[in-house]
Amino acid sequence: MRYDIAIIGTGPAGVSAAITAKIRNKNIILFGSKALSDKMIKAHRILNYPGLPDITGEELAEHMREHLKSLDIEVTEKQVSMVYAMGSYFGIQAGGEMFEATACILAGGVSMDTTIPGEDNYLGRGVSYCATCDGQFYKDKSAIVVGYNEESVSDAEFLSKLCSKVYFIPSGKLSGKAEMLKEIFAESHEKANIVLINEKPLEISGGLKADTLKTDCGEHKADGIFVIRDAVAPDKLIPGLKTDGRHAVADLQMKTNIEGLFVCGDAAGEPYQYIKAAGQGNTAAISAVRYIDSV
Amino acid sequence: MRYDIAIIGTGPAGVSAAITAKIRNKNIILFGSKALSDKMIKAHRILNYPGLPDITGEELAEHMREHLKSLDIEVTEKQVSMVYAMGSYFGIQAGGEMFEATACILAGGVSMDTTIPGEDNYLGRGVSYCATCDGQFYKDKSAIVVGYNEESVSDAEFLSKLCSKVYFIPSGKLSGKAEMLKEIFAESHEKANIVLINEKPLEISGGLKADTLKTDCGEHKADGIFVIRDAVAPDKLIPGLKTDGRHAVADLQMKTNIEGLFVCGDAAGEPYQYIKAAGQGNTAAISAVRYIDSV
Repeated sequence: MRYDIAIIGTGPAGVSAAITAKIRNKNIILFGSKALSDKMIKAHRILNYPGLPDITGEELAEHMREHLKSLDIEVTEKQVSMVYAMGSYFGIQAGGEMFEATACILAGGVSMDTTIPGEDNYLGRGVSYCATCDGQFYKDKSAIVVGYNEESVSDAEFLSKLCSKVYFIPSGKLSGKAEMLKEIFAESHEKANIVLINEKPLEISGGLKADTLKTDCGEHKADGIFVIRDAVAPDKLIPGLKTDGRHAVADLQMKTNIEGLFVCGDAAGEPYQYIKAAGQGNTAAISAVRYIDSV
Repeated sequence: MRYDIAIIGTGPAGVSAAITAKIRNKNIILFGSKALSDKMIKAHRILNYPGLPDITGEELAEHMREHLKSLDIEVTEKQVSMVYAMGSYFGIQAGGEMFEATACILAGGVSMDTTIPGEDNYLGRGVSYCATCDGQFYKDKSAIVVGYNEESVSDAEFLSKLCSKVYFIPSGKLSGKAEMLKEIFAESHEKANIVLINEKPLEISGGLKADTLKTDCGEHKADGIFVIRDAVAPDKLIPGLKTDGRHAVADLQMKTNIEGLFVCGDAAGEPYQYIKAAGQGNTAAISAVRYIDSV
């Protein structure tokens, strides 16, 4: 089946886009996390979301989850690893499956991480951003997971069931649940087939394929290297998308250079603010609806 | 005294701009109505303001009034009749007074009304958009008020205390309170010095100054003609502002062609949506703060 609109991301931008598109009777698929946005949940206090004075990020997320529920909008918990612009529709690769949609809204946030030297070079050749998509290539082989978020930990667990050995290397500060799971790793790594390596990732190298991660303490060999972040650079997710630094280039109607593709929220540029993201999500949805009605 | 930021309009865009600017410790003045936006209040159901599922416009306005109150943001109930870009600051003429601000955010909405033939030609020469600003020129003279909103009715009442005679001509459908007050006019016009004329305004004419309003039923003479609408076209309010049809031209940071002047909400273009307006208000405020910090 082909959806009207695929929405990638469940921060305030993606949620807002989904709400407006659903109200306009479009058949949508919303990719993200049922918990919504990790970044939003971690916000201590939000003072400038008009109408909801002085709330925590978790409270705002709860309000938004209720809003989605009231409109029967489901979240599809699959990570989108690639979006292909096919001309009259988009092919969206997510969790090893392919989805189709007439229009696509990118609301995947912005990656504030710098890439690891060698990462760009080996992407698709031993380096992957998606364990559930590419994990099967490393069955009974070894894998390194570099990450800091909850998803990176669950990806490591997922891979440990497929691979002979998984090395988990935290990149930067681990967030809440990841920190907890790091402890579980440390305690049970023998049994769980996961080894926690508390070193700083420095460089990815190899021959035709990546096979080595250099850290501040040495080198680790593996068949595959998974780099898991909150957001992937927009032009890595969608080949051909025009970007300016970390952001997709859009106009005030949230149109990108690719026909039928719209962007909103942090992925569309600063300021990184919840209410700005929600506003742009609404605009992106309305532009997508107009696009669908015109083709 | 000079304010950091003057914000014109109390719809979701202006409210959001005021909230963000205040949180960033800027000294602001917010022009509009304590009731906030007439258009918002009249909305029956708003389904797509993320976090506040299925509320009425009045409920959203009440949430926003509470938000302003929680941050000690006052609304200055004066109508802005002109904004002058002075280079290093803005001169804002409102209710017969002049205010100064380093940056200015236009959030005055969009006027969906077509102008009356002759109106543009006679603006400032017998035609005025602001009774409290220009009323004194018509002391003991006669005035026509053309309008449909609450403000137009209170302007007519204001003028009836100054002028010898006031004719109130509803342009289009009167909104709630205006409808009620129309009945009061009809009952008490002899005493109150206001005459309600239920005719359709067609053309403003005169010699050097406007003195005649032609309607579908005849002609009415007066010394001054006040045309009162929810919003005034942006380039009439701010000479030199670049517009595209009814809207000010802005980039994604809500910057206009005038340095230090930002625009948001309906005044910045479609879609006319509450959450989009609130999002742009936030962005305009952050851009204004950055501008102030850079000059």
